[in-house]
Amino acid sequence: MSAGEHTAADVAAMRRALELALRGPARGVNPRVGCVILSPDGEVIAEGWHRGAGTAHAEVDALAKLDSGAARGATAVVTLEPCNHTGHTGPCAVALIDAGIGRVVYAVADPGDHSAGGADRLRSAGVDVTAGVLDDEVEAMLDDWLFAARHRRPRVTVKWASSLDGRAAAADGTSQWITGPEARADVHRRRSAADAIAVGTGTVLADDPSLTARAPGGQFFDAQPVPVVFGRRAVPSDAAVTRHPQAPLFFEGAELHADLAELARRGIRSLFIEGGPTLASAFIAAGLVDELLVYVAPTLIGGPRLALGELGVTTIDAALRFDFAVIERLGDNLLLVARPTPTEGN
Amino acid sequence: MSAGEHTAADVAAMRRALELALRGPARGVNPRVGCVILSPDGEVIAEGWHRGAGTAHAEVDALAKLDSGAARGATAVVTLEPCNHTGHTGPCAVALIDAGIGRVVYAVADPGDHSAGGADRLRSAGVDVTAGVLDDEVEAMLDDWLFAARHRRPRVTVKWASSLDGRAAAADGTSQWITGPEARADVHRRRSAADAIAVGTGTVLADDPSLTARAPGGQFFDAQPVPVVFGRRAVPSDAAVTRHPQAPLFFEGAELHADLAELARRGIRSLFIEGGPTLASAFIAAGLVDELLVYVAPTLIGGPRLALGELGVTTIDAALRFDFAVIERLGDNLLLVARPTPTEGN
Repeated sequence: MSAGEHTAADVAAMRRALELALRGPARGVNPRVGCVILSPDGEVIAEGWHRGAGTAHAEVDALAKLDSGAARGATAVVTLEPCNHTGHTGPCAVALIDAGIGRVVYAVADPGDHSAGGADRLRSAGVDVTAGVLDDEVEAMLDDWLFAARHRRPRVTVKWASSLDGRAAAADGTSQWITGPEARADVHRRRSAADAIAVGTGTVLADDPSLTARAPGGQFFDAQPVPVVFGRRAVPSDAAVTRHPQAPLFFEGAELHADLAELARRGIRSLFIEGGPTLASAFIAAGLVDELLVYVAPTLIGGPRLALGELGVTTIDAALRFDFAVIERLGDNLLLVARPTPTEGN
Repeated sequence: MSAGEHTAADVAAMRRALELALRGPARGVNPRVGCVILSPDGEVIAEGWHRGAGTAHAEVDALAKLDSGAARGATAVVTLEPCNHTGHTGPCAVALIDAGIGRVVYAVADPGDHSAGGADRLRSAGVDVTAGVLDDEVEAMLDDWLFAARHRRPRVTVKWASSLDGRAAAADGTSQWITGPEARADVHRRRSAADAIAVGTGTVLADDPSLTARAPGGQFFDAQPVPVVFGRRAVPSDAAVTRHPQAPLFFEGAELHADLAELARRGIRSLFIEGGPTLASAFIAAGLVDELLVYVAPTLIGGPRLALGELGVTTIDAALRFDFAVIERLGDNLLLVARPTPTEGN
C-alpha cells in the first residue's frame, strides 16, 4: 500500500469509530469523535471516544487503554482530523506521535480556528496520513458542528407563521393559533432539535413566550433549546423566559455577526429564530439565514401586521432568492421550507 | 310507471340530450341545452339543441323537426327545466303543452330569475314531469352558468403572485417576472378559460397590461376573456386594453355587487381578477371571491408593496378562512388554490 491509500480494514475500522463517536454528547462545544487503533497486522487493539468538553479527546482516550509502547507502528483510525490545539488537553497529533503511531486514517478535516493543522504536523513527524475515508458519513453525523466550525456561527433557521397574504397577526395584534395543531406540534419538534431559540425583546414584551419545546400535551421534551433574547429593551424580571430550564442569553442585537460568533463559541450550532418580524427581518437582511420555515394558514387577514418588514430590497432584481426544499401539508396548513439559492461560485 | 319515475330509456335519451347540448356555444348569456323527443313507444323521433341567444331553445328546435300533431303523447327529455319565460322566443313550457307533449323529463331546475317555473306550468297543464335524471352530469356541464344564474353574478377568481413574504413588487414598483415561465403560462391558460378578466385603473396606469391570453410564444389563444376595468381614474385612449380583441367594459367599482350582476346579465359567468392589490382587496373584503389563485415565488422582498391591502379584519378570529384545494409546484414557484371554507348552514 502506498502512502495515503486505504484498505478495507481501514473502512471497517472507520465504521466502528463512527459507532463509538455516537456514544458522545450530541450537543456542546466539541464534536462527537471516535477512534480505533489497529495493530500493524490489522487487529483492533484499542477504542476510544470523546465524552464532551473537558474530557479526553477520542485518540487520547484510545491510547490510554494501551500499555506504554503498545501503539508503536500501529494505525489510528479516527473520524475527525487529529487536533493540533492545546486546550484542556494537549494536541492529539502530538499524543499520537509520542505514542509511536505509524499511520493515521481520518474522515473529515478539522475546520477549527485553532485546532486545524494536525495532519500536517503528523506528516512532518513521518507519520503516514490518509484522509477522506467515509467522509460523507462523518460529514452527515457532524453536520451542524461542521457548519458552525466552518462559518464561525450557528446554522440559522428563521421561522414564521403567516396567512396567505403574509400577515402574522390581525390589526389588534392578536395572532394566537394563526396555524393549527399539526403546525404547532411541528414547531415544537423543531425547537427541541435546535441548540438555541431566539426572539426579540418586542416579542418578549408583547407575547411573553416560554420558548420551551413541548409535546402537544404540554410535557417538556428532554432537549430544550437555550433561549436567546435580542434587543435593547429591558426584559421584565418575571418574564416567562426567565423560568426556562436553560438560562437565557441576552444580546443587544446591533452586531448580529459578532453575536452569532459568540453563540458558536458557546457551542450553539443551530439557532431557531422565532420572531418577531423585526428580529427575523434583521437576520434576513444581514444575510444570516440558512433556512426559512414558513407555516402558511389558508386565511386572509390584510392590514399592517406583516410576518417580515423591511429587508433593504429596493428593486425586483435584488429580491432575495431561495429554493423550496420541502412543501408539506400539516393539517389545514402548509409548511414551506426554503434555502438560499446558491450563488455563482458556491 | 308512476308519475315522476323514470326509465332506462329516459336515461339513455338524457345522455343523448347531453351530447346535443355540447353542440351549442360554451359562452354567452344562455346555457347549452339539448332535447330528445321520444314517441310513446320510446323511439327517438326528434332532436334539438340551443345555438345561443336569439335562436330557438332546444325544445322548440326539436319540435320544429316534427310534423304538426306528431308530438302528441310524446316524451320530451331535456337537460334543463323548460323555461317559463318570453324572451326572443315564447316559453318552452307553453310550446311543449301546445304540441301535446304528455311527459317531460329534465335534469336540472332552471335557476333563472324570470325563466324558472316551467315544471309547475307543465304540471298545471296535466303534463307528467320527472326531474333529476343525470342531474350531476348536467350540473357539471353547466357549472359556471348555473353558478352565475343562482348567485346573479360570475364566479370570481382572485389571482396574485407574491414573494414568500406576501409582497407583489419591490419598493420601486418593479415586479416583472416575480414568478417564472411555468407560472406565467398557467396564468394565461386560466385567463383563456375565464369569460372576463378584471384590473383596476391603477394597474392600467402603472403597467398598461394587454389582458390577453397568450401562449408562451406570444400567439393569442382562440378564447379571449372580456377585459373589465374597475375604477374612477381615466384610462388613456391608447392603453393596451383598448386594443384587446374583445371590447373592454368599464365600471366605477363603487358597487361591486351591482357591477357583477351586470356582468352576469351580459353572459359573463367567470371573472378572473388580475389586480392590483386595491381591486383584489376590495373584492375579497366584499366577500365576492370564490377562489384564490396564489403564485408564490421562493423569494423575499420586504417593504411596502403588498399583494393585498386592507380587508377589514381587525382581530384574528375574524380572519377570512379558506381551504387549500390545490398545492402544486410550477417550476421554481408554487401555485396555491384556495376556496372559502363553507360556513355553517352552507
